Amino acid sequence: MATSPFIPGFKLILASQSARRATLLTQAGFPFVVRPSEIPEFRAPDETAFEYVKRLAIQKASAIGIAPDEGILAADTTVVLMDGKTELILEKPADSTEAIAMIGALAGRVHSVLTGICFRWQDQQWVHVEETKVEFSPLSAKEILEYVASGEPFDKAGGYGIQGLASRFIPRIEGCYFNVVGLPVHQVHRLFTLAGVLA
Amino acid sequence: MATSPFIPGFKLILASQSARRATLLTQAGFPFVVRPSEIPEFRAPDETAFEYVKRLAIQKASAIGIAPDEGILAADTTVVLMDGKTELILEKPADSTEAIAMIGALAGRVHSVLTGICFRWQDQQWVHVEETKVEFSPLSAKEILEYVASGEPFDKAGGYGIQGLASRFIPRIEGCYFNVVGLPVHQVHRLFTLAGVLA
Repeated sequence: MATSPFIPGFKLILASQSARRATLLTQAGFPFVVRPSEIPEFRAPDETAFEYVKRLAIQKASAIGIAPDEGILAADTTVVLMDGKTELILEKPADSTEAIAMIGALAGRVHSVLTGICFRWQDQQWVHVEETKVEFSPLSAKEILEYVASGEPFDKAGGYGIQGLASRFIPRIEGCYFNVVGLPVHQVHRLFTLAGVLA
Repeated sequence: MATSPFIPGFKLILASQSARRATLLTQAGFPFVVRPSEIPEFRAPDETAFEYVKRLAIQKASAIGIAPDEGILAADTTVVLMDGKTELILEKPADSTEAIAMIGALAGRVHSVLTGICFRWQDQQWVHVEETKVEFSPLSAKEILEYVASGEPFDKAGGYGIQGLASRFIPRIEGCYFNVVGLPVHQVHRLFTLAGVLA
């Protein structure tokens, strides 16, 4: 596996600027080059979180020109907290006040992390949405304020990084861990298998 | 949290040479120094995996001299596969043949990762055993052989590294992810809280 796992000539393009997704792909042994896709990210009225991340992944994968030997992988991750029957989608917090409110809302509850992935190759596409349940421990006001003051929440959907300081606050998950970081690696591997790009 | 989260004067000693445990503690924002504990690791007859990792964590924490301002954290992780009612404990594979057998036994099944942790401070100790269920996808003989050839299995209990190439093969877990890497960070945080060493 020190060499490329792909069929000869195939090149993987990652349509994401996320350093965390790049790290996950690298750790999983998939070589790639980054070609970020810029699309407007607005949720449509009545669009569920599931539909939203799926649509964004497909749009991101479609927004980039690729050569015949290139396959493109795009992803979109969002954090969803159920409030009764209403889905609260937690995007990246804009400021400390929003980050404090988000972490306060997550504390002591279970939320979902949804990632839509789309792999396009030779005029075909394979799509998947992965859900992982994440449990947060109850947090004191002091813990919430200290966590937000660390700066960790600000570039992350849901306002936390499971692989960082927030590891203290997450006793358990159900599902794919890597999905919470930003890319469900097993499902990416499955789409590559379905598409026939693995050697 | 850029500063130490501990009470003034307190020093954390990690009784483990594991680079992965050191990384997890650092990511969680706990400063420490490493002072490895060397004890013989033999499972007693009729000792369950739960009792085994608990005993080893306590023994590792007890095997090191500490100053009054030092607290010591020790851990032991093992991988357990149930074969009917029999616990198969999967240690670090000795060679390729053993690694191939281990990965073959894990493929397509759910196993448990158990970590015993012990925190000793000022003549008291706090102990916990954490269990995480890990699901492996079915694997072809080619995938198993390629994975073992990558060299990743050889320094790891159970013969795999969830954070490495094996991330492709693990669709889901139930429980603490960091426990599978080698240290249940949330429980470590909880023991520090119980012991009163957090500022």
